[in-house]
Amino acid sequence: METLTVQLAERSYPIYIGTRLLQDPDLLKRYVRGHRIMVASNDTVAARYMPSLISALPDFYVDTVILPDGEQFKTLETLNAVFTALLEKRHDRGTTLIALGGGVIGDITGFAAASYQRGVDFIQIPTTLLAQVDSSVGGKTGVNHALGKNMIGAFHQPRCAIIDTDTLKSLPDKELSAGLAEVIKYGLIGDLALFEWLEANLDRLMRRDGAALAHCIRRSCESKAAIVATDEREQSGQRALLNLGHTFGHAIETALGYGAWLHGEAVGCGMVMAATLSHRLGWIANGDVHRAGNLIVRAGLPTRLPAGITRERFLDLMRADKKSIDGLLRLVLLRGLGDAVVTGDFDFDELEAMLEDYDRESRPRG
Amino acid sequence: METLTVQLAERSYPIYIGTRLLQDPDLLKRYVRGHRIMVASNDTVAARYMPSLISALPDFYVDTVILPDGEQFKTLETLNAVFTALLEKRHDRGTTLIALGGGVIGDITGFAAASYQRGVDFIQIPTTLLAQVDSSVGGKTGVNHALGKNMIGAFHQPRCAIIDTDTLKSLPDKELSAGLAEVIKYGLIGDLALFEWLEANLDRLMRRDGAALAHCIRRSCESKAAIVATDEREQSGQRALLNLGHTFGHAIETALGYGAWLHGEAVGCGMVMAATLSHRLGWIANGDVHRAGNLIVRAGLPTRLPAGITRERFLDLMRADKKSIDGLLRLVLLRGLGDAVVTGDFDFDELEAMLEDYDRESRPRG
Repeated sequence: METLTVQLAERSYPIYIGTRLLQDPDLLKRYVRGHRIMVASNDTVAARYMPSLISALPDFYVDTVILPDGEQFKTLETLNAVFTALLEKRHDRGTTLIALGGGVIGDITGFAAASYQRGVDFIQIPTTLLAQVDSSVGGKTGVNHALGKNMIGAFHQPRCAIIDTDTLKSLPDKELSAGLAEVIKYGLIGDLALFEWLEANLDRLMRRDGAALAHCIRRSCESKAAIVATDEREQSGQRALLNLGHTFGHAIETALGYGAWLHGEAVGCGMVMAATLSHRLGWIANGDVHRAGNLIVRAGLPTRLPAGITRERFLDLMRADKKSIDGLLRLVLLRGLGDAVVTGDFDFDELEAMLEDYDRESRPRG
Repeated sequence: METLTVQLAERSYPIYIGTRLLQDPDLLKRYVRGHRIMVASNDTVAARYMPSLISALPDFYVDTVILPDGEQFKTLETLNAVFTALLEKRHDRGTTLIALGGGVIGDITGFAAASYQRGVDFIQIPTTLLAQVDSSVGGKTGVNHALGKNMIGAFHQPRCAIIDTDTLKSLPDKELSAGLAEVIKYGLIGDLALFEWLEANLDRLMRRDGAALAHCIRRSCESKAAIVATDEREQSGQRALLNLGHTFGHAIETALGYGAWLHGEAVGCGMVMAATLSHRLGWIANGDVHRAGNLIVRAGLPTRLPAGITRERFLDLMRADKKSIDGLLRLVLLRGLGDAVVTGDFDFDELEAMLEDYDRESRPRG
């Protein structure tokens, strides 16, 4: 088992990475302060892992709530289902919420923990690669609104995150790919060595080699923790680097309706768009765009837009993204592989021309 | 104009109390960091005060959202209406939300500010006595759940609170009384001098004497600010003193359905119950119960339960209150006038006997 600490002063917390952690009765109980626990999960994950989790918690009163899964259910309504379960079972302020599942379960459960009785304890047990390398670090929680993704939420740090790599054995291929998008992102943002390690080892990851997965999860969590430690509430702009590919990606997700593409798929495509724009602006070489695109293709991720998102619609969706401040569109772009910047200072015409190209290439040939 | 500061380290903020503050263009603008403002209010208050507020904000883009008023609308659904308005008008993270109205508007708007894009700026302009002496200090925000009051929310401090006492001229009598319940509470909890001042001056307050109102608002805000400064997130138990009468009051409100009694009316009755129980436990003299009850009657508040809440139902509702920890029922009780304690250490039989008495007295004589 490996341990790393997310450094956030009095909100610091450990992340444990290893095998057979879910069954470990001594690990979890150190992070539960009261007697009661509510585990939120979805059908698929609960069927597979809930029994061993519950049997690892013999000293507690454990209730469970099963939520519908998928980005389209990340709503205030599903959030309310968690509150209803807590109130029906009379959980008080001393309760601990455990999120057992992927990013959607983690985001909803985390926000429920942030706002139930104005804040209760929370433990993350992410079971997808994406949630392990992304949601487990940084305390972002929330739900979507019909008019925008992740528009409602809170910063609420967990007491600990437990990453059991055994849970990846049953992960669908598409979701493995979606997680790899975020891993590639950490390389592109600020870790050239990780990027190059991925170029050399991506096939091992696709084969789900345990040691390779543990390595890239650890490295990803460290990268994100280092950024989050400098900018917990996304105020200095440092944390915004983590949004590489996300402004493009969110626009795609909103255009298609949540759930049509996985978040990681949209981010994968969004990162290629960010690299392409960076090249058009003369900031990186064409070869760098190819290296980034190649890794994203090898990870099984899309690099073209779904058909039918016009330039105008895309720009419209980007402007609604919450990274824009006072109407200025800010993007994460590349100055090199492993060197990203957040900027509103770029030639807007190039963005428009690129979106035009992407839209044209997405159309069926006639 | 009087100013006091709520001391909360980097979240400290000023409260301004005076006349004609709503129209003052120099006051508000110091606390708005961006260019955009969303004012949330209700029909009645907006008709009366929105025009002067907007004309005092000539340098900003001001949007408004009108919410249904009343405790029964303090729901996730109404909260979502604020998010929808913000998203439709494309407000970004730099926006400022202003709550113009009573406690319900303040609680919903504050929670919307806490969770819109994971937190934006917030200004309180409370227009009822209750909101002025209660919601304007302490940063508690939130909405109700069908199974319990104020069960969903956040601590989110405003950038400032502006109390314009002119707004009290149009306040309905019932709501003036409801506000006085909280003022009396500050006296009972820890300020015998305020309690005695109220005994001498309650009639002036009922006649809406401006100087008397300003005095009691200032004194109340100071009392609450002193308590909140020691225990911002209700962790040490100090802040729980503010719940005198509230565990009883919430049970009444839940039993009747939100909106049947005003919050302050329920708290008024709840404080008499707390005083009565304190006397039954031998902690205060019968004369003290009478002094408290007398002030509450003079303020136009009820001191008897509505008919039909049995002892069992009342206990059930109290146990669901979020002040209970690990199932232990904790109450704020009196050791004297101006001397309250939070305790779970009392003779439960006396509580049951008292609830039995209150229920019996509430029944129509046959």
